[in-house]
This record gives sequence, structure tokens and C-alpha cells, in this order.
Amino acid sequence: MNMSRARERLVVIGGDAAGMSAASQARRLKGPGELEIVAFERGHFTSYSACGIPYWVGGDVTDRDRLIARTPEEHRARDIDLRLRTEVTELDLDGQRVRARDADTGEESWTPYDRLVIATGAQPIRPDMPGADAPGVHGVQTLDDGQALLDTLERTRGRRAVVVGAGYIGVEMAEALINRGYEVTVVNRGSEPMSTLDPDMGRLVHEAMEGLGITMVNDAEVTKILTGGDGRVRAVVTEDREFPADVVVLGIGVRPETALAKAAGLPLGPHGGLLTDRSMRVRGHEDIWAGGDCVEVLDLVSGQDRHIPLGTHANKHGQVIGTNIGGGYATFPGVVGTAVSKVCDLEIARTGLREKDAHRVGLRFESVTIESTSRAGYYPNASPMTVKMLAEHRTGRLLGVQIVGREGAGKRVDIAAVALTAGMTAEQMTTLDLGYAPPFSPVWDPVLVAARKAAAKVRGTS
Amino acid sequence: MNMSRARERLVVIGGDAAGMSAASQARRLKGPGELEIVAFERGHFTSYSACGIPYWVGGDVTDRDRLIARTPEEHRARDIDLRLRTEVTELDLDGQRVRARDADTGEESWTPYDRLVIATGAQPIRPDMPGADAPGVHGVQTLDDGQALLDTLERTRGRRAVVVGAGYIGVEMAEALINRGYEVTVVNRGSEPMSTLDPDMGRLVHEAMEGLGITMVNDAEVTKILTGGDGRVRAVVTEDREFPADVVVLGIGVRPETALAKAAGLPLGPHGGLLTDRSMRVRGHEDIWAGGDCVEVLDLVSGQDRHIPLGTHANKHGQVIGTNIGGGYATFPGVVGTAVSKVCDLEIARTGLREKDAHRVGLRFESVTIESTSRAGYYPNASPMTVKMLAEHRTGRLLGVQIVGREGAGKRVDIAAVALTAGMTAEQMTTLDLGYAPPFSPVWDPVLVAARKAAAKVRGTS
Repeated sequence: MNMSRARERLVVIGGDAAGMSAASQARRLKGPGELEIVAFERGHFTSYSACGIPYWVGGDVTDRDRLIARTPEEHRARDIDLRLRTEVTELDLDGQRVRARDADTGEESWTPYDRLVIATGAQPIRPDMPGADAPGVHGVQTLDDGQALLDTLERTRGRRAVVVGAGYIGVEMAEALINRGYEVTVVNRGSEPMSTLDPDMGRLVHEAMEGLGITMVNDAEVTKILTGGDGRVRAVVTEDREFPADVVVLGIGVRPETALAKAAGLPLGPHGGLLTDRSMRVRGHEDIWAGGDCVEVLDLVSGQDRHIPLGTHANKHGQVIGTNIGGGYATFPGVVGTAVSKVCDLEIARTGLREKDAHRVGLRFESVTIESTSRAGYYPNASPMTVKMLAEHRTGRLLGVQIVGREGAGKRVDIAAVALTAGMTAEQMTTLDLGYAPPFSPVWDPVLVAARKAAAKVRGTS
Repeated sequence: MNMSRARERLVVIGGDAAGMSAASQARRLKGPGELEIVAFERGHFTSYSACGIPYWVGGDVTDRDRLIARTPEEHRARDIDLRLRTEVTELDLDGQRVRARDADTGEESWTPYDRLVIATGAQPIRPDMPGADAPGVHGVQTLDDGQALLDTLERTRGRRAVVVGAGYIGVEMAEALINRGYEVTVVNRGSEPMSTLDPDMGRLVHEAMEGLGITMVNDAEVTKILTGGDGRVRAVVTEDREFPADVVVLGIGVRPETALAKAAGLPLGPHGGLLTDRSMRVRGHEDIWAGGDCVEVLDLVSGQDRHIPLGTHANKHGQVIGTNIGGGYATFPGVVGTAVSKVCDLEIARTGLREKDAHRVGLRFESVTIESTSRAGYYPNASPMTVKMLAEHRTGRLLGVQIVGREGAGKRVDIAAVALTAGMTAEQMTTLDLGYAPPFSPVWDPVLVAARKAAAKVRGTS
């Protein structure tokens, strides 16, 4: 700790969810007389919902500013010294200081810290191929990216859009572009869309997307992006086909943005994310915390570390970090891998392990799939849903649930998320006292139907 | 066991959810060569959804038969000897036999059993007051009741409906009658509607019902029902007012139908329901099981027995009973008191203990109430919801959750239902990995917001 200053200084690197939640929570617990807070953000914005970008592009959200939970001015009003458009370029751990560059002036300077929060987020994977940087090719990671894509859509006459990648961002961007009246083709490396699901469940997403008029191309690796005479994107090329495109959206995932941390010798995990303890302290570093898309988190079901970039985790991390820096006590125990998404009226949800995750960590399991409905079968708008459940061989412990269906399907995954956290077995789940009334559920909730079938299979094969 | 017959005989009393689930599950496990099944039902129907009656009356469900999950013919095709319109009038435990009367012929006869299932359900509380049996005054317990009400609605010119009682049936019937174009007045003995909620949450239901055009009259005890010159209902009278009525629906609750069981000396609990063990065997009786609306169930949160008539429990009881009779093993561990309902687009849900329940069983608690939305605030149709959470003083153990809101509010109670079952604390709940995406939830799910506030309050007051 630097004793030459009267108060401690907290430096935060990264002005989105994790960083600014940490700063805000620390400020709530310690006033400016006790704690100085300096936050560096290389972009123009703070505390915004990157998850909301597809809905802004699609037109569901009309105003960019609605995606901003807290503006730079609001943070500054809380005595957080926020430096926008200022990128941290080096960490000096021994000297307890960070070097930052002002993007406008190019000036660099060192800022000392007593405590440091690393919340540098993730960076989109940009394919290393010809044309990937051509005008008309867009990522959707930041608000600036979203604005650039919207500008392109505004200017572009053609109505052919190609989305590369069929994960959450890919399917959400497919929906956004369908909503804007584009002909949408999704080019996907995997055998089915949504590789966060098992392929049999991804198949249901595939069929539903085609039903929505989206062209779904699986098992296709993009090899290059062609440009026209004007230098703009013209087509997306795979090994054996060419897809004409007036606009291309890349949704092929992200990786932790940890170059700074790596250069400073901080501990990184197998996925390239920072490794922390339960209090979100970087392992082995008493005064450095990290959270959000730049860290790996413990998967409570597999017992292994994973990289899961998701706003809800980033906010929780920030809350935990800020509490600990503020003199309180909080921990982040880990995740169970819950995610939910939609493409038009199709809802897609998962929690826990897929079949291949279970294999990978040495777990044997029974797998069942059932069909049910969101409401009592006789109630209007009862919509079908498919629930897949994995339970451990012998013990029957719940390992994972995947749900694909229409309205009312997605958030049912929360039942399984809590059960996973509690370590319940499928058998225990069969008697869960879930909310029942005809407009809300069949008399046996679909998750209970799956649990009954899974429990029976575990019994039958033990 | 009666050894004079080659196979065992199971006798089931009551042909709805619990009884016929038990019979069906027993049949699945034991064929007719091993087990004879005789089921007595005093009405015309089997295995129907009484919970669906308000939606049939309201017109959401157009066909009565859609409420029937399995017809008498379907049961008979599974070798269940189903005797409709036949009421069991006496249990002879020493003789292991039941006496039944055919409603059409009036004939009575004894049927011996090796194993007995009592699933006699519940009976509506009919107020003991003048006019309660007048034409135009209806209960909605059975399909026959529902048909009688529909016949009245068909015949009646007037458009003024009075619903007596503001519990689940009361508010659902208010919706049904509003949907049919009636002027609806709900007369309620309690201080707010939905006494299964704390009054502060019931107040929200009150306001919403008035917003829907329903006249809500609280703190009003009905003293008599007036009839006109034609003998039909004309008005509902309370101590100080008179409410003109062309039709009256009674929704003032039910009590366990256990007259037979009581006469036979079977053990009843404080609420008049049969007492069973975990396998749903009647306590002290090796060969008698009971389930559904005629039993009391263990409340896992309070540790005391309660009477909760609800189709989802009845189905689970039947499943457990049938499995045990069929030679398998299953238990019903108890309930946490989850219920969900709606009135038009207002969703109402609860699980666990209300404030007065906690007081009654000697639990001290902290209580918090928060406002949030069903989706990210910037996403279209994000609708407000109020979540109230009770957590035990010092330990922080979750005790109960109540939710009132619009679309997306009701089934969120399942998160708390599973957490209650698992014995989680509010603090543990703050890091639950729930499904997040802007169309499904704010970045902090409303239940997590409540958990954070409850955990903070527990810490602050410990």
C-alpha cells in the first residue's frame, strides 16, 4: 500500500459492467475521503448493455442511449474520476502503477494504485482471412460497433445479409436482420446452430430458424470474404460455396482481453482468462481483482474453469469486487452455465453440462428428452417445448438441462439452474413444488416430466 | 391380505387426479393378472382438471371435454373396473371392505379390498345462510358445477355478477365473468384480495383488479342472499350493503372431504385432512393410502401440516401411491406452498411463508419488497413486477417469496420454490446463475434483486 497519500487509490481498467459495478459498489461503501477511484475506459461509453445491441440493431430498442445503464456524467457525479478514450497500455505490478494513453492526444502517463481492478472484457474473434476487414463486415461487440452496423444498413441498398456464426450473437443478429427485412443466411462451422446445445437440440433450432425464413448453412467454414469494385463486401465464401452479401455480421465468439495481464505475468487459465479466487482477487495478488468477460469462472457442475462472457456474471463480479474493496465481504462461488436466448418467437435455454461436457470431465450419465407444453394442453396458446435432461449414472444427480420451445420455455431453465446449484438429483426434482395453474403450466411442469423420466432411467440402469 | 382370492384387489375411492393417477400407475407396474383395480366415482367424470373450470366458464376453453385428461373408457381399457355414479358410503376397516351405493338404482353392496386408496377430494364451503342454495348461486368445484353455471349464464339476461370470496377461485372467476362481459363485484371477507399473500401484496392485486373494471369490496361478510319473485337470486347482502346480482359464484374455499375416513376412525389433522406418512400411507394403516385434496401435507418451511388442495399435488400423490402399491418405492416429501394465478394480465404468485405464517410458527424474519421488470428495462414490453421476500433473522434462510406483476412475473416464483426446497439463504441466492438475456430478464433478475436486499438486511440486523 502506498502510504505517501492520505487516502487509498483504486484504479479500475475498463468502464463497462464489471469495472463500473465494482467502482460504484466500492464508492457506496467508502466515500471519496477514504477512497479515490480512477477508472480508465478506452471507448466512448460506460456501463452499457452489450447484450442489448442485437435488439437495437433489430429495431426493438430505438434509442442507443437506452442501452446505457449509467453515463460517464453519472459516474463522475459519484466522485469516480472517469477517463474516457484512455487506454491502459501497461501494468507495472512492482511499481503498483498503470500506464495509460489518451486516444485523442496520444499522451501517456503513469497512475499509481493501491488497489487495482482489471475489467478489460473480451475481444471478438475476427477471422484471419482476406476481406474480414472490408467495409460492410461488422462485429457487434461495442456500442460503436452497433452504430457502425446501423450506419451500413442505412446506406446499403441490397437486402442480403450473411451472419457468420450461429451462437447467441449469431442467432440474435439473424433475428435482428430478419426484423429489418433482410434475406438472412447464417453460415455455421458446426453441425447445427447453437453449439452450446447438444446437436439433437440444436437441430430443433435449425428447423425453427428455417421456418422463420432464415437460410441455415451448417458444417461450413468461411474461407474468405469477397469485395466488389467499390471495395465493399460482396460475398462470403466457404470451401465449396459462395453466398452473396450486402452486409456481413461476424458472430464467431469472443476471447478474454488479457494481453495486459499476460504481459504483466498475471495468472491465466486454459481459456486465456484471468484466474481469481472466490473473492474475485487475482490468484496470488492481494490487491488486484478481476471480473467480467476477462476472467475464467468455476463451473460448479464440472468442477473446471470456463470462460463465459455474460453481462449478468460481470455485474455480479463487480458487485463482489466492490464489496470486498469497500471493506465488506462477498464471494462469487461459480456458475452452472445457464444461458437463454431467442430467435423471433423461438426460445432457447440451457444450463449445466452438455453430453460432450460430461464425457470430457469423466461423468457418465443418462439422457432423456421429453415433449410438453408451456401451459395446460387445453389452455389457449399452450406452446410445445422440448426438454432434454442429463442426470449422472447411479447417483442421479442433475447434470444439465436444455430447453427449446416457444413462449414460456426459456426461463423455465431457472428451475434447473437452482436445482444444479443445490446439487439435487432428478428423483428429488420430481416432487418440486412448482407453480401450477392452467395458464402457466401443465399439471406436471415440463421440467418435472423430464425429471421423472430421467429418474426412472437412472433407476432402471443402476 | 385376503388370501382367498388368487390376485390382490385394490379399491380406489374417488375418480379424479389422485385416485386415477394412483390406479394408472399401479396398473403400469402390475398387470391385471396380479392386481385387480376397482375405482368408485360418485360423479360422471374421471381425471379432469377442476383448475380449468374458470377458463372454460370464461370461454378460453371452449370444450368441456378438453378438461378431461382421461375418460372412463380409457381407464376401463386399461383394465380398471371403474364404477361411475357410485358413492362409497362406509369403510369397514376390520372387514377390509367398502360399501358403495349406485346413484341411479340406489342399490348398495360391499366390495372387499386388499389395498385401499382414499382420494375423496375436497368439498366447497357453502355458507350456511338464507338463499345460498337459490337458483343462480353456483359453486365451481366439479365439471357438473361448471356446466350448471354455464347454463345459468346462457339463460340469464342480466349482466351483474357477484363473486363471493377473493382467493384463487374468486379472482379467476372474476376474470372469467369479465371476459364474458359481466359487471363483476367481488365481495371479500379479508382486508385485501388473495389472502394467500400478505396484505401489502394483496393491495397490489386489489388495485389491478379495479383497473380491470372489477369492483372489489373488502372487509365484507356476506350475511344472506336475496331472491326475487321467481325464486332466483336477486342480490348479495352484507352487514351494511346490498349488491344486486343476476348470478352469484361462491369461491370461499374448500375443506377436505373426509367424512368416511372420520367415521372409520382414520387419523385426521387439525385441518380435517387425512394424515399420511412420506409414502402417502395413512398413518398406522399398512394397506391404506390417501392423497389429493383430502389429505394434509407437510409444509417443509414451517414444519407443520397444511391443507393445500391443488391438482399438481394430487397428481404427485397419485403417482407416489401407485408406485408403492405397484411394488416400487416413492415418497412425497412435502410442499413449500407454491401457488400461481392470474386475473386478466395480472400474475400473482407465492411460495413459502407469509409474515403471519412465520409469526405463527415462531420464526423471526426480515422482509423486503422491490420493484423490477420482467425484461431488460430497454426491451419492449418490459413489465413491472413487485417481489417481496422473507428471510429468517440471523440465518438468512429463505422463508418465502410473493410476486405480483404482469407477463413473466408468475413463474419466476419457481426460482424461490426450488431455493426453499434446498434450504438456501438469501445470500446464497444472490449468486444464482439464472437465465439472462434482455428479452427474458434484467441483468439482475428481479428475484436476485430481492435476494440482495434481503441478504443486506439480514447482515445489517444480525
